[in-house]
Amino acid sequence: MNTTKTDISTLGEFGLIKHLTQSIKLENSSSIKGIGDDCAVLSYPDKQVLITSDILMEGVHFDLTYCPLKHLGYKAAMVNFSDVYAMNGYPRQLVVNIAVDRRFSVEDIESIYSGIRLACEQHHVDLVGGDTSSSLTGLVISPTCIGEGDKESIVYRNGAKDTDLICVSGNLGAAYMGLQLLEQEKAVYNQQVKEGKKDLAFQPDFTGKEYILERQLKPEARRDIVETLKKANILPTAMMDISDGLSSELMHICESSKTGCLIYEERIPLDYQTAAMAEHLNMNVITCALNGGEDYELLFTVNLADYDSIKNLEDIRIIGRITKPELGCKLETRDGQEFELKAQGWNPLKTQESAEI
Amino acid sequence: MNTTKTDISTLGEFGLIKHLTQSIKLENSSSIKGIGDDCAVLSYPDKQVLITSDILMEGVHFDLTYCPLKHLGYKAAMVNFSDVYAMNGYPRQLVVNIAVDRRFSVEDIESIYSGIRLACEQHHVDLVGGDTSSSLTGLVISPTCIGEGDKESIVYRNGAKDTDLICVSGNLGAAYMGLQLLEQEKAVYNQQVKEGKKDLAFQPDFTGKEYILERQLKPEARRDIVETLKKANILPTAMMDISDGLSSELMHICESSKTGCLIYEERIPLDYQTAAMAEHLNMNVITCALNGGEDYELLFTVNLADYDSIKNLEDIRIIGRITKPELGCKLETRDGQEFELKAQGWNPLKTQESAEI
Repeated sequence: MNTTKTDISTLGEFGLIKHLTQSIKLENSSSIKGIGDDCAVLSYPDKQVLITSDILMEGVHFDLTYCPLKHLGYKAAMVNFSDVYAMNGYPRQLVVNIAVDRRFSVEDIESIYSGIRLACEQHHVDLVGGDTSSSLTGLVISPTCIGEGDKESIVYRNGAKDTDLICVSGNLGAAYMGLQLLEQEKAVYNQQVKEGKKDLAFQPDFTGKEYILERQLKPEARRDIVETLKKANILPTAMMDISDGLSSELMHICESSKTGCLIYEERIPLDYQTAAMAEHLNMNVITCALNGGEDYELLFTVNLADYDSIKNLEDIRIIGRITKPELGCKLETRDGQEFELKAQGWNPLKTQESAEI
Repeated sequence: MNTTKTDISTLGEFGLIKHLTQSIKLENSSSIKGIGDDCAVLSYPDKQVLITSDILMEGVHFDLTYCPLKHLGYKAAMVNFSDVYAMNGYPRQLVVNIAVDRRFSVEDIESIYSGIRLACEQHHVDLVGGDTSSSLTGLVISPTCIGEGDKESIVYRNGAKDTDLICVSGNLGAAYMGLQLLEQEKAVYNQQVKEGKKDLAFQPDFTGKEYILERQLKPEARRDIVETLKKANILPTAMMDISDGLSSELMHICESSKTGCLIYEERIPLDYQTAAMAEHLNMNVITCALNGGEDYELLFTVNLADYDSIKNLEDIRIIGRITKPELGCKLETRDGQEFELKAQGWNPLKTQESAEI
């Protein structure tokens, strides 16, 4: 948190909102009226409107010990944009509700907003509203994103068909490895505090691990992939973003589309740092890639006829194919064995026990 | 909370959402796709889209000691609908994010949802999405409502003109008096507990106070007023809903519209129970009506030429008029004195001190 501390009550709710939002300019023609009335007013005469919303809770979704407030704001916006891209649409407006307890100063909220606004600028999204409240304990951020898509090109989860190719963007498991790294450093720090060495300047060494750290703290929504597919004239048959892990999301697509799937271990895209960190922690890197979550890459299926168009597209990897429903959801390992995929995806309702320790 | 307690982890996040939402049917033609994908998909080719969002925090906005979960869900939805009516629009879709700590069972969340769904049914609103998470401490509800309005008839805060009539629906201060009543009974109960009498069956007597209690626990968004005005061919020049108190909202309209105003004490609509409770608590009922908040009545201004059309409309009262900006915002008392209006509206960022006691 910031060193200068202005008490929020000096501004009040309306003053604070004014302070945070007065310099906002609306960029999109669909944004008719932004902050400052009972509702924001939007206009979508020729498009369908996409709505997605999240709630991020301190201690459950993020840990302020190692997550800077600006990054948190950035991530909160980005994960919502990612959901809109996952429908093959474009995010246009964002509403962010924030509740803070009294650890937070005006400058802290400015930091959160600066991250939100940076994400908005990068994705040409207008910040059009939001509620600000106090909280008895803990920070809460609840963003809602409004986007648009053409009726004919919005991609749902339920359109995958037998023989479709399964593709993912980027690489997987990196965000989860970044989280493990941060948790490890936090444990070291806490141990030092416990041993009374807390006045030692704590300097974790992240050299060579910058990439996995960034994937955890500053995820990027894959607008570029949506644009790449459009340019290549490829309309996915089904699409999701990977927030809970590849296995979990793929099973959602198969369940919605009433299909099975087969993916190949050797095709799962991994970054070197992800593999190195997994090795260091004695974890199976494929398990991390399958179940890690928070990658915010796009998982999609395309018609087999699109094979030639998609096979050489940058940063997209074909990892398997859709099968008949009776074949289930399978992973074929490097040595030719087949395993049932399991959704061990991160579940924010099951982490209470561990989160409360 | 409910007596049957099913642990949430037995269902998991996806199971819980499925359980809560599987029987939802979409009612509006603008709702293309509801719960079950990365985004909800809406269609608004001929209307402008209205978006409003809130965050309700346990201990700040509500107290579960006396607020039943079903009522809380109902109120969370209703206050968002109210914001859409305040733009002279109609709510059509609702997204609700909920975070619960481990005091809450599946049945508790069902209760919250049953209130949300009751409100939705009454106002023909489709529940199209929402995130469910755990919380380390306290319940959080963050609803976002999507509505529609005709471009020509959406009413903003900034359209009030000198000589316009100022009107309010219903009556004011009742919700605040209901809150005082509940707080009073809570104090009595806590005192009994303190004195070791907690095994006494605590039975607060609310006879003759049902109305103010209902105004606090089960507010109703004034769709009927929007319809009444439409039938009477009256388009307000400015409108807001009264969530923070009449003074505060009126000053918002005057600031946005760059006008002053003059309202008359004797014209402020009060219910008998509100007046009786204020008397009982030795409070000034006009102060309560001006600053109480949570009434969710509509405050609006109409052109002077609409006087004949509006003067006899049911449940609408003309309380004053818009004036030139240099005259400020004034209240004229029964004895002819003029006072400057002050916005002492309820401020969720200033209540931390008292809320934490």
